[in-house]
Amino acid sequence: MQIAVLLYDRFTTLDAVGPYELLGRLPGAETVFVGKERGPVYGDQGSLALVAEKTLAEVTNPDIVLVPGGPGDQDAMADEEILAWLRTVDAGTTWTTSVCTGSLLLGAAGLLQGRRATSHWLAYEELATLGAEPTGERVVFDGKYVTAAGVSSGIDMALHLLGRIGGDELAQSVQLLTEYDPQPPYDAGSPDKAPAHLVEQWRDTAALPA
Amino acid sequence: MQIAVLLYDRFTTLDAVGPYELLGRLPGAETVFVGKERGPVYGDQGSLALVAEKTLAEVTNPDIVLVPGGPGDQDAMADEEILAWLRTVDAGTTWTTSVCTGSLLLGAAGLLQGRRATSHWLAYEELATLGAEPTGERVVFDGKYVTAAGVSSGIDMALHLLGRIGGDELAQSVQLLTEYDPQPPYDAGSPDKAPAHLVEQWRDTAALPA
Repeated sequence: MQIAVLLYDRFTTLDAVGPYELLGRLPGAETVFVGKERGPVYGDQGSLALVAEKTLAEVTNPDIVLVPGGPGDQDAMADEEILAWLRTVDAGTTWTTSVCTGSLLLGAAGLLQGRRATSHWLAYEELATLGAEPTGERVVFDGKYVTAAGVSSGIDMALHLLGRIGGDELAQSVQLLTEYDPQPPYDAGSPDKAPAHLVEQWRDTAALPA
Repeated sequence: MQIAVLLYDRFTTLDAVGPYELLGRLPGAETVFVGKERGPVYGDQGSLALVAEKTLAEVTNPDIVLVPGGPGDQDAMADEEILAWLRTVDAGTTWTTSVCTGSLLLGAAGLLQGRRATSHWLAYEELATLGAEPTGERVVFDGKYVTAAGVSSGIDMALHLLGRIGGDELAQSVQLLTEYDPQPPYDAGSPDKAPAHLVEQWRDTAALPA
């Protein structure tokens, strides 16, 4: 089984690394980080680069594709080489997945037409313009298309996928070994839970502090 | 404010990227990934490299140091260059932090003598041999020393630190924007909660599936 993680300029690093950390531990899985060119691809904070080991042309038939989000999403959505690659690999995947605004790339590639999907909470409207039906759920399965909400939600998505692919005990083992027993000191992780004035503030600015 | 993240061969990538994603958004903070040499440093799964932008010698006075864990911990604990660097930077830090078995490196450098600290649940005994007093808490503050439990716990640690450094509203904003509203589909994230036979199995093998 091959898992391909797409990297593009100004992606959000945790979108990719969160699910990778868990999903990459599927027995027998090979994960490959893929970019337009081989070499370092910088995330949205500018201080961290992940290395693309293969070019798009070198990875054509993964079983799972994972598309992270990030402020670079708009440029990536306008990049026909990336969109064509997504369509090509999607034709052969068992699971086509995204985290955060990675779903906008899937939508721009035409892969979410009429499908239930999610994205970062600030991107629901844009997701709808791409033909998807946005939901507020944290992880959304619609056939083989699996989309997760903002940034950290990819970890939950990975556990769901581990369970479906490898069974409950594998998923529980990986959860135990990564000690994924979340205890956030605040309860502000969704627009329904965060203080209303912060939600409004970020609706207005729509950008992460960097 | 400078945040230095140490990279070494076969570190666990989420240990570093989880807290980086949140903590790096501190207004005015500069994050630098540091290694023995500049260039790609491969994580424990072998398929993902993060780029060290600076060498140890180039980063001598960070305000925060973050040490990830991983199966490479034993080699790193035997590397006097790394231990000497940890002692040097610790002399000037505001916060000295670790995730997972990163605390073993801090312990090996002599920085946790008599301090309350934590680590991956499989590493409590080894942590004690290094002079620390292991606790089962997810995030442990002892003065400026902040240690987190296994892998994913670094995200919780980052929220605690954001609150202490930048205030509750900053921490809540970052939690909202990273949608850190965890909804794991299983409740197996600690040895107290996971099925007992899985806990025993991993106590015996003490290694992540890879």
